[in-house]
Amino acid sequence: MGKFIMIGENIHCIAPSIKEAMDKRDPAPILERAEKQLKAGATYLDFNIGPKRKGSEGLMAWGVKLLQERFDNVPIALDTADIDEIESGIKVYNRSKGKPIVNSADAGERKKYIDVAAANEALVIALCSKEGVASDNDERQACCMEMLEHGMGLGMEATDLWFDPCFVVIKGMQDKQKEVLDFIRWLAEQGFNSSGGLSNISNGMPKAIRPILNSFMIAMSINSGLTSAIVNPCEPELNRAVKCADIIMDQNLYADSFLDV
Amino acid sequence: MGKFIMIGENIHCIAPSIKEAMDKRDPAPILERAEKQLKAGATYLDFNIGPKRKGSEGLMAWGVKLLQERFDNVPIALDTADIDEIESGIKVYNRSKGKPIVNSADAGERKKYIDVAAANEALVIALCSKEGVASDNDERQACCMEMLEHGMGLGMEATDLWFDPCFVVIKGMQDKQKEVLDFIRWLAEQGFNSSGGLSNISNGMPKAIRPILNSFMIAMSINSGLTSAIVNPCEPELNRAVKCADIIMDQNLYADSFLDV
Repeated sequence: MGKFIMIGENIHCIAPSIKEAMDKRDPAPILERAEKQLKAGATYLDFNIGPKRKGSEGLMAWGVKLLQERFDNVPIALDTADIDEIESGIKVYNRSKGKPIVNSADAGERKKYIDVAAANEALVIALCSKEGVASDNDERQACCMEMLEHGMGLGMEATDLWFDPCFVVIKGMQDKQKEVLDFIRWLAEQGFNSSGGLSNISNGMPKAIRPILNSFMIAMSINSGLTSAIVNPCEPELNRAVKCADIIMDQNLYADSFLDV
Repeated sequence: MGKFIMIGENIHCIAPSIKEAMDKRDPAPILERAEKQLKAGATYLDFNIGPKRKGSEGLMAWGVKLLQERFDNVPIALDTADIDEIESGIKVYNRSKGKPIVNSADAGERKKYIDVAAANEALVIALCSKEGVASDNDERQACCMEMLEHGMGLGMEATDLWFDPCFVVIKGMQDKQKEVLDFIRWLAEQGFNSSGGLSNISNGMPKAIRPILNSFMIAMSINSGLTSAIVNPCEPELNRAVKCADIIMDQNLYADSFLDV
């Protein structure tokens, strides 16, 4: 394994201020969120521009350049349903601090995102699902192997696919959480990398509870072998969960000050 | 599995006020700590009278009767290095709410605690160690099997031995934490019950950090299959870790109020 990798999720067009900044190509709000996430320990920054829409052409390349120029070629997860934008973003991407992540493929209609990753020597987050969330771990495993075979057929390394177990919401799918944790363990046993949008688990819960449950779920996921996640690194509970799990898994040297650094 | 079982550790002669109460057979301070622990969700109460000393004769039986009469036959872990006290405590023990726990045996000099448990149809916490902490999981496993064989030879059910992986301190043995978690998983895979003094892991750390690391360690241990632990259930961080882990492992039905009940 290694230190747990946080992919900062906060630059997302779903936030009105970020959408506006993206539309106007206004750097300030984006750089502010980037800086906060990096200070909180994010390794990657997710840049999520959403689906193709009017005026979004060239937006990914703009964002990649903006963030990498300001933050010493910070590695970025290129996140959009517009595959052309991913390709143009990668064209201007500087790899000195890490490969770009294509976010995301699945075993169904988004399998072509693996093609883009393979053609551009990128990493890809690969959702272990085909049409909606997999109904069980046999299905997750089948999706995983299908994408692995596809990627390796295109010359990718197995470790360049970061498999996403597809975290599911506790309210409504409480009995599926252990299944997800078991699948993470299976991925780890194969030596695969993994990632995913962890905060899904607490959707629909009171605001005060969400970070608490998220924090224990991520510690338990790391214990099962999860190697990265798309999270809000500025969330204090989540942040300390990752730090504590890294200490317990011996991926960061303990010092009495470890929570403050 | 099942809901995680907390054995409340707070009635311990190491606390000066409790030692004094035990010496004077003064119920109030003991009942107060018992009540708080039960309110916080403890299933078992540990009653720890320490080693044999002047005036300690009959103390375990006194404590068992005191706690069970006041709290509806609450199940108790009888905890002392004085094996005669354990036997006399069990003689007055009411089993209507659960078998007594003998705390604790090991594979060395304390193997006789298994004899006491077997002779009295009690549960026993069985430390997977012989002389000091096991040096690796092969040794833990050998100790475990030795005690299991011994107990079953005396007619015990395998599930009546609650194997203790022996949590070790992070400061100094940071590289051993994952080993302990792996051993817990191995125990769970065999279908064994488990328990242990979890707070050992944070010995020597600043007071503010201890409950935080304890809370993530217990969530990760539950994720690995730990079925119980000897803990302070009144510690808010620890308490919510257990509640969240029970929700995630689907051992308690989620409700928005689950942290408050």
